[in-house]
Amino acid sequence: MRATLIYGAGDVRVEDVPDPAIRQPTDAVVRVLRSCVCGSDLWPYGSKPASEQGARIGHEFLGVVEETGKEVSGLGRGDIVVAPFVWSDNTCDFCQEGLQTSCRHGGGWGADGVDGGQGEAVRVPQAQGTLVKLPVGEDSALLPSLLTLSDVFSTGHHCAVAAGVGPRTTVTVIGDGAVGLSAVLAAKRLGAERIILMGRHKDRTDLGLDFGATDVVAERGEEGVEKVRELTGGDGTHTVLECVGLKAAVDTAFGVVRSGGTVSRVGAPQYSDVPMDSSLFMRNVTLTGGVAPARAYIEELLPDVLDGTVEPGRVFDRTVDLDGVPDGYRAMADREALKVLIRP
Amino acid sequence: MRATLIYGAGDVRVEDVPDPAIRQPTDAVVRVLRSCVCGSDLWPYGSKPASEQGARIGHEFLGVVEETGKEVSGLGRGDIVVAPFVWSDNTCDFCQEGLQTSCRHGGGWGADGVDGGQGEAVRVPQAQGTLVKLPVGEDSALLPSLLTLSDVFSTGHHCAVAAGVGPRTTVTVIGDGAVGLSAVLAAKRLGAERIILMGRHKDRTDLGLDFGATDVVAERGEEGVEKVRELTGGDGTHTVLECVGLKAAVDTAFGVVRSGGTVSRVGAPQYSDVPMDSSLFMRNVTLTGGVAPARAYIEELLPDVLDGTVEPGRVFDRTVDLDGVPDGYRAMADREALKVLIRP
Repeated sequence: MRATLIYGAGDVRVEDVPDPAIRQPTDAVVRVLRSCVCGSDLWPYGSKPASEQGARIGHEFLGVVEETGKEVSGLGRGDIVVAPFVWSDNTCDFCQEGLQTSCRHGGGWGADGVDGGQGEAVRVPQAQGTLVKLPVGEDSALLPSLLTLSDVFSTGHHCAVAAGVGPRTTVTVIGDGAVGLSAVLAAKRLGAERIILMGRHKDRTDLGLDFGATDVVAERGEEGVEKVRELTGGDGTHTVLECVGLKAAVDTAFGVVRSGGTVSRVGAPQYSDVPMDSSLFMRNVTLTGGVAPARAYIEELLPDVLDGTVEPGRVFDRTVDLDGVPDGYRAMADREALKVLIRP
Repeated sequence: MRATLIYGAGDVRVEDVPDPAIRQPTDAVVRVLRSCVCGSDLWPYGSKPASEQGARIGHEFLGVVEETGKEVSGLGRGDIVVAPFVWSDNTCDFCQEGLQTSCRHGGGWGADGVDGGQGEAVRVPQAQGTLVKLPVGEDSALLPSLLTLSDVFSTGHHCAVAAGVGPRTTVTVIGDGAVGLSAVLAAKRLGAERIILMGRHKDRTDLGLDFGATDVVAERGEEGVEKVRELTGGDGTHTVLECVGLKAAVDTAFGVVRSGGTVSRVGAPQYSDVPMDSSLFMRNVTLTGGVAPARAYIEELLPDVLDGTVEPGRVFDRTVDLDGVPDGYRAMADREALKVLIRP
């Protein structure tokens, strides 16, 4: 089959690779209907050292079950399924607590003999725990929105849930990328009345307004902090959803959080330390979040996607086939595209 | 009257100062029955630059109301009261949320014309919101335990509450000072079954065992982290209560926290940054805590102190009069005394 490999910064190729096959009785093989490029894929695309050996890439996909191992029950050939962005047994203590990203028998896509998501098919370990069946057909118009359950919408939701967003909380979302916009949508879905979106790309913040943002702050850094404080009577917001991953975004988050409030981070951290000094101590500010256990949320979010209450798939503004994947990466890196959908 | 002033590192004096008097209609004047030295007082005692001008010090006290301003209701001459370690109106939005340390009309003791707690009497601003009446007499044997509601036991409780300690959580407490031991007691009171106390002073950790610790780890740093991991099947504990305030203690906390778990800090931070890198992100570790809004907890903790269910006053192992305060500081700084009670 054909699949995407990354050889280094700016060097993504689509090549022939071995067809996936059942190796363990808990595996399934899934033919990919839709995949996509993640903002986090842009970090290696921006900086990975060049290598002779390409690495498989892609961790978001939705597809059709082609084959299952002997120990997989509840899933069969022809089922349409979505895969969260890590695989997990969904039975260990961490999984039972809703932290499938720390599953004792789980792992990531595209490593250790497991296929990446940006290809024609994937061998899925722990298939019974990992895959969630979707009550739609191969040609459903909902596939893009359903695919976001794999990562981007679930990540926005995790960010908001970890922060404690609810009807009585005010929210600042930092970042107008696909995760930031998903966080806006998730915060709105959880009942937040005030959602301030910090971003400076008008086409993106316009989608944020559609998703439920009540205010947009285009300013960054100190100026942005002051603007949010102005909008909130000087106090800042109860929760801040950090959807970028850069140190500057974390600094902004601490600047706009209300005393007693929570900064929740889901931007893959491109920093090692954060400021947590006496002033944040005196203000009882909490820092939470992390990689989203998407698997924990799919059943909860699914009905609202199926009935159109939320349309998280609107973050996709370009569609490519497999041959178009390298240009899809380029377009996202150049901010020509917000998020690229792949139809293999 | 006589009160304690700090002139710099190692230089604490007891001197004559003006008698407190009502200045605002919301004030009260309280004659101090018991005060004490806080672990956080040792930071200026260790490093404050020398000054010609002494600064009032002490923020924990319990006493008798001598006089109240015209707008103070519910309190009268002769009432025995405890003061939390910041004063607050207890009516603003932050106070109503239980964050009296961020009160819009509150402040600290020993600054801006407000007396410190380590003296014969104190003018209490926002007296109606700040002071809590105690149903005991001036000679009650419970006074030391009741005094801990002012700060140290409430701080231990805040640390445990912010961390989410309950019957199903395992706990590591870092630090065997009075706050750490109070955190052990608070965690036990909240139902934690497993409480690992990290500390290396046997007399203190013995009290910790009395307070409910199930394990003591004397090792520090990497060795201490490994020991806690050994005790927990490699996982660490759901919650970690950081009761020291040094960077090394925070590093240890992140080392022993279970994935998905929470580090709660109440040690006054002697650091500005903390590590919050990709590995903690992948593990969904939360950092919470801060200065304790003791006022929020006093009514809740009071019954258990009054009926002897908890005896947080056991952290006091030395009693001095006002003349003995300088030596009390020295004894705590030299770790001769765990916590010094003051009877003016």
